[in-house]
Amino acid sequence: MDDSAELPDNWGRWGEDDERGTLNLITDEVRERAAREVRTGRAVSLAVPVRPAPVLSGPFAPTTTTDASPVQQLMVYAGSPATATADVLLVTTHHPEMTHLDALSHQVQGDQVYPGEPLARSVTPAGVRHGSTTAFAEGIVTRGVLLDLAVDGPVPADHSVTPEDLEAAEKRQGVLVESGDALIARFGWVQTRYRGNPMPGMSVAAARWMHERGVSLYGGDLADSHPSLEPDLPSAMHRVALPRMGLPLIDAVDADELAAVCAELGRYRFLLSVAPPRVHGLTGVPVNPVAIF
Amino acid sequence: MDDSAELPDNWGRWGEDDERGTLNLITDEVRERAAREVRTGRAVSLAVPVRPAPVLSGPFAPTTTTDASPVQQLMVYAGSPATATADVLLVTTHHPEMTHLDALSHQVQGDQVYPGEPLARSVTPAGVRHGSTTAFAEGIVTRGVLLDLAVDGPVPADHSVTPEDLEAAEKRQGVLVESGDALIARFGWVQTRYRGNPMPGMSVAAARWMHERGVSLYGGDLADSHPSLEPDLPSAMHRVALPRMGLPLIDAVDADELAAVCAELGRYRFLLSVAPPRVHGLTGVPVNPVAIF
Amino acid sequence: MDDSAELPDNWGRWGEDDERGTLNLITDEVRERAAREVRTGRAVSLAVPVRPAPVLSGPFAPTTTTDASPVQQLMVYAGSPATATADVLLVTTHHPEMTHLDALSHQVQGDQVYPGEPLARSVTPAGVRHGSTTAFAEGIVTRGVLLDLAVDGPVPADHSVTPEDLEAAEKRQGVLVESGDALIARFGWVQTRYRGNPMPGMSVAAARWMHERGVSLYGGDLADSHPSLEPDLPSAMHRVALPRMGLPLIDAVDADELAAVCAELGRYRFLLSVAPPRVHGLTGVPVNPVAIF
Amino acid sequence: MDDSAELPDNWGRWGEDDERGTLNLITDEVRERAAREVRTGRAVSLAVPVRPAPVLSGPFAPTTTTDASPVQQLMVYAGSPATATADVLLVTTHHPEMTHLDALSHQVQGDQVYPGEPLARSVTPAGVRHGSTTAFAEGIVTRGVLLDLAVDGPVPADHSVTPEDLEAAEKRQGVLVESGDALIARFGWVQTRYRGNPMPGMSVAAARWMHERGVSLYGGDLADSHPSLEPDLPSAMHRVALPRMGLPLIDAVDADELAAVCAELGRYRFLLSVAPPRVHGLTGVPVNPVAIF
Repeated sequence: MDDSAELPDNWGRWGEDDERGTLNLITDEVRERAAREVRTGRAVSLAVPVRPAPVLSGPFAPTTTTDASPVQQLMVYAGSPATATADVLLVTTHHPEMTHLDALSHQVQGDQVYPGEPLARSVTPAGVRHGSTTAFAEGIVTRGVLLDLAVDGPVPADHSVTPEDLEAAEKRQGVLVESGDALIARFGWVQTRYRGNPMPGMSVAAARWMHERGVSLYGGDLADSHPSLEPDLPSAMHRVALPRMGLPLIDAVDADELAAVCAELGRYRFLLSVAPPRVHGLTGVPVNPVAIF
Repeated sequence: MDDSAELPDNWGRWGEDDERGTLNLITDEVRERAAREVRTGRAVSLAVPVRPAPVLSGPFAPTTTTDASPVQQLMVYAGSPATATADVLLVTTHHPEMTHLDALSHQVQGDQVYPGEPLARSVTPAGVRHGSTTAFAEGIVTRGVLLDLAVDGPVPADHSVTPEDLEAAEKRQGVLVESGDALIARFGWVQTRYRGNPMPGMSVAAARWMHERGVSLYGGDLADSHPSLEPDLPSAMHRVALPRMGLPLIDAVDADELAAVCAELGRYRFLLSVAPPRVHGLTGVPVNPVAIF
Repeated sequence: MDDSAELPDNWGRWGEDDERGTLNLITDEVRERAAREVRTGRAVSLAVPVRPAPVLSGPFAPTTTTDASPVQQLMVYAGSPATATADVLLVTTHHPEMTHLDALSHQVQGDQVYPGEPLARSVTPAGVRHGSTTAFAEGIVTRGVLLDLAVDGPVPADHSVTPEDLEAAEKRQGVLVESGDALIARFGWVQTRYRGNPMPGMSVAAARWMHERGVSLYGGDLADSHPSLEPDLPSAMHRVALPRMGLPLIDAVDADELAAVCAELGRYRFLLSVAPPRVHGLTGVPVNPVAIF
Repeated sequence: MDDSAELPDNWGRWGEDDERGTLNLITDEVRERAAREVRTGRAVSLAVPVRPAPVLSGPFAPTTTTDASPVQQLMVYAGSPATATADVLLVTTHHPEMTHLDALSHQVQGDQVYPGEPLARSVTPAGVRHGSTTAFAEGIVTRGVLLDLAVDGPVPADHSVTPEDLEAAEKRQGVLVESGDALIARFGWVQTRYRGNPMPGMSVAAARWMHERGVSLYGGDLADSHPSLEPDLPSAMHRVALPRMGLPLIDAVDADELAAVCAELGRYRFLLSVAPPRVHGLTGVPVNPVAIF
């Protein structure tokens, strides 16, 4: 049962050269379903705010101690006196404190990436040739469904989220995750995560549930437990869903405001617009997902 | 008439500490107007694709010559053999070949930035304190209107776009730019621009027209003529609209596909979602604006 | 007496286009004098060790908090499994905790840099055209003289070093600073400096003494007092010596081991080799000065 | 004979934790020998000049196309109007057009680095723990010997340099490479190298000769042939000398001026000072080696 042959897998499902994975599930019909959720134009960001740290320190930048921010900023000399201002940024794409979208080549399976492409051909020192952020170039628009797992407080650190947990949330909220939907999961961990402490996560069974339901995109304030709550299995989201199912992941989502708005409106479905900067060939990219009601 | 006292100006209109400028014009009513445009969920990106250049050259990255790309990419060592891949990016925010959103502090008026804040207090070597991308943190959702100025071919390099041009496009397309709308202008220059060659642009009168109509956000494949077609006046978009009117600008928009879709659908209005990475304190930020029909 | 007309000044002394300043004082005769000091080949570094901080954090680089190091390091992906390792560095040239050599254009006098060049022509957003590190390209070899001002403990924070202090050190050590020599000053502050605390420094009279003696290069664990002990005068080393006298400065020297070796050998003169990476067009550059006995 | 067991090897010679490799051969006696070569203080740089490329392009930095320079420079905003200027550098340590010193961990042998340290323990995503530039912290001072292999023109691209070639140069110049000496080799390729074209290099037999002679440091305008002239053997300098013998390499040396000065003086020996910025934990570092006569 734990055998990897049993793990959910989409290699070959959309061809040997596929770079879009489960984004292929977003059909015209799914987008129309998304459109029907738009009524007032109210929009909620699912991104964690990033405060950049200055690269420069010393007399020109008094802050001399910084956290390792996902974004470092250099203010640029543009003549003296300045008639314009500009900056250059150093961005760590997979930083755990920045909302970002993982490309399918971000995780390696043996020496292959989704859907069976040799690592050496896909990912080179000069950039990613296959399975990169190029797949996200035009932006992703689909129906989003929030499953709030934290209505009674944060998911406990020792709990591995099961299909039953997901279906209980569906029932509680009166929604059904259908093929092509983006699943936004709220663990209630935005305030406490990312400090090396134990964290809950999705079970492999939950990943299989997403596979069966046809989830096209996953975003959550958490994804995989740390340390693993299923030590005999690969991590559900980063080692199964992303590389085997070809399911793009949005890491470090902040779904707190979204949950509040959903509860206020009594609506847990929305149009989700995920449009990262149109930069090709990356393993991941910062993004500001927006839920539109 | 050319006197700067006559230039359109919003300093003080939304308070002395305002950081949102004309984004203040996007009311609930405007967003609802935007929502009404969403019917099928079809989405079009307005961003120019960026192909990053590798920072590294030599034996580990065979490409040894590069254009100065807006984004430089470093593939990161994550252990050997690699079980994951990652990268770090160096991003030039105001690069003319990358679609980006200018913050209000990007242009300096004397020694002040919008709306009269001293430059030294607003923009420091350690980052921007006032009028930065923080104003875009939650994403911008409003109604977008395309005015296609290039139906008969690219706007000529020696033509300064007038209010009459804009109103002719409105008439031709059967639309009206109203208060709170984002204006997307197509000059037909996506293929030829950005090489130091002469380019057309908006006139100061056109900026005044935007002021009177209540445009909340401007995006175009071009903005200001180069060299200036109105040498006695400040540049319409970057020296009048941005710093005086507080009108955020999206530079380097690609509206070609948008124009084709609008023509196909016979609809020049859409919901526009502009959600750059949620990074505070910048003078500008890459963005992938999405038009949703 | 405080009048700036009275400040020591070398503008024009070596021509209007000069980029070497007091390095012009290093003649063949001076180098021969330096050569005579070399007897055993024993070498002492005058550089502070820099421990780089990783740019990357998160799962691939466990350190998540860092000081703002002068050097940030990115380990580079060079294939999997790795047959070689490589890195890319981000270097803050004027970081107060890294030994570095200031170019003559580093300080601006009104809107000019040494020796009267307009700032706009010398320093551009694309690099430095005049008075840059190009002047150090071939390395600097001259005689060095240590003046140890801290034999009885660190120079007090409220003391402005005078010509009398310098001559007392000469007398104590049995040396004479002559034209073309590099002056290495030890304040005894290597352990305590660089944290915003009050620090001693050179007086303007001491800078004038260096001018009269013909010092070609200055290096010290400190240079200017902070806050200024001579509030009515410009800072002696960074606002007088560097931009007016054209005297290159090595900031953040560690002279502790040098002082110990000099005392052990009873010799306070040596050949000094100052050879920063041969990078043109910078305002400053890291360096590892070496005293050879 | 080609068997790797026969390749020259210093693993374990200076202990299992050694990080200095053949630098251990530089004894007090060797340094004294070096000191005896210093007579006039005349100094020659062995570094290739690097012209940095601006990171920024667009309106603030008119140069829009650049080669992939080893050093990218960002001019930093330090207030307006500027009273000082500063920059931040992005440095590619192993760039083939920049003179740099390879650390012993730069090349991997199986999954080990010199002298048998597991790669995973030595080189981490957060920096190098063993065999890094820390070994060069205090600077390297030793006797240098130039062997000019190009007196009759550049070494042909299809020639693998043999021990006989090295000894012919010794004889021609009247010098002998002795234990602890730095060997500087001139192929006459400074003007033509580094463009992917075929290049000559050292043979494995030449590396063995260096091993037998006790060379402590190698610098050359070339090192290994490309493509390999000994396809059945590992590359002499980067796969044998560096990782097996623990011989640090200076890549991309410019020895043209040095050869001219040696010929003029009739002296091919000198004190060599190699003092890279004192940055710990790197795989390589830019350096400006200086020959002092």
